[in-house]
Amino acid sequence: MTLRAAGRQSLVDTVVDQLRAQVTAGEWAVGGRIPTEHALAEQLQVGRNTVREAVRVLVHAGMLRSRQGEGTFVVSTADPGEIMRGLQRAGVRDVLELRIALEAEAARLAAVRHEPADLERMRAALDAQTAFEDPDGQPDSGNLELYADHDIAFHKAVVEAAHNSALTATYGWFSSSVRESLVTALGDREMPRIVHGDHHALMDAIASGDPDAAARAARALLDRPKQAVESLLAER
Amino acid sequence: MTLRAAGRQSLVDTVVDQLRAQVTAGEWAVGGRIPTEHALAEQLQVGRNTVREAVRVLVHAGMLRSRQGEGTFVVSTADPGEIMRGLQRAGVRDVLELRIALEAEAARLAAVRHEPADLERMRAALDAQTAFEDPDGQPDSGNLELYADHDIAFHKAVVEAAHNSALTATYGWFSSSVRESLVTALGDREMPRIVHGDHHALMDAIASGDPDAAARAARALLDRPKQAVESLLAER
Repeated sequence: MTLRAAGRQSLVDTVVDQLRAQVTAGEWAVGGRIPTEHALAEQLQVGRNTVREAVRVLVHAGMLRSRQGEGTFVVSTADPGEIMRGLQRAGVRDVLELRIALEAEAARLAAVRHEPADLERMRAALDAQTAFEDPDGQPDSGNLELYADHDIAFHKAVVEAAHNSALTATYGWFSSSVRESLVTALGDREMPRIVHGDHHALMDAIASGDPDAAARAARALLDRPKQAVESLLAER
Repeated sequence: MTLRAAGRQSLVDTVVDQLRAQVTAGEWAVGGRIPTEHALAEQLQVGRNTVREAVRVLVHAGMLRSRQGEGTFVVSTADPGEIMRGLQRAGVRDVLELRIALEAEAARLAAVRHEPADLERMRAALDAQTAFEDPDGQPDSGNLELYADHDIAFHKAVVEAAHNSALTATYGWFSSSVRESLVTALGDREMPRIVHGDHHALMDAIASGDPDAAARAARALLDRPKQAVESLLAER
């Protein structure tokens, strides 16, 4: 029974891989309907239950969508799970550059679109962070996780102040996966010291309503760790 | 039998939703191990097969990872499938602003990191596109899909010339889902005419090795459709 269950599990995974390969290859158009469960079972020489489970996996992954009584349709030819895994294999420098791209543009838009509540959330995150600093103004080594949470909250507030749902979704998507590397970097003595003025300068630039100044401040804030990472990589 | 299968299908979906809610709420740390199949089955009052199928769904979605003999670990608290669906509900203006964020920064990096093959791919995409233009230099209404494919290939080549795997992964993730809206926009008489000089100006700025000029050219290229969308939205 255990062996049979294990065998069935890997068969579903195989069918998931086959269907995903057909979707990413563009075999069915985005917005178009894929063949019926019955037809796919015949094509792949497996049972309909196996096809049904595999389709469920791709629906939850955001590649397919099932409409009651109408069939199953292609939503996207990109596999979000695979891209998420690729992002986690990306180096620290690459992730910092992606953050600069998203945060500098978000700050630019936030300068003209922010509401009072956005600035309040940025300020609250920076205020809360001071509780987890040592007397020297650096992250308290015993509270790196809480310090990181408030840092992420500040940057998320900046991105949300752009009032752009596509930017917010994309930023939220990968910020949860960079938390771990942020905690590691905060505890790393080779990384540059935290400069509080940078965070306040960004908040002030957004509040002043100057898009170019806000973009420059967001870039300056992340350029410091980026340069430190590049120096470390060059030394190796 | 059919009823039972249908009931079981929706039970797995329910367990997927429950586990996903626990992961996104941060109940288990990123990098940490989730409870065993047996413990989860007891907690949720369902069979172990149901738990196993639900875990499989979240592994394929990129939220969990199973390591043979070690257990199942949290990879990310963000649900890629849900974010993909959110991105597809985002408006055209929001998606254009996300493209500006990613493409302007990619062009900036591409100016200093591009290789000869990158420029060749940009040029090949622009050359191939001319076959699908009408005598007026605009997209041939009978070939909008092929025209769009070469346009996407050009912009992908720009992003890949930055040689940053996180940027490439993120851009590829959503570019497949914007193809449909691009085809619609190309056939829309209210959208601005295609200006070929913009694409060549971007390629030349990257080739010249000037990061600021490349970023400006990428922004100028997408600012035109963005302004058209904003005018249309303001008229409504």
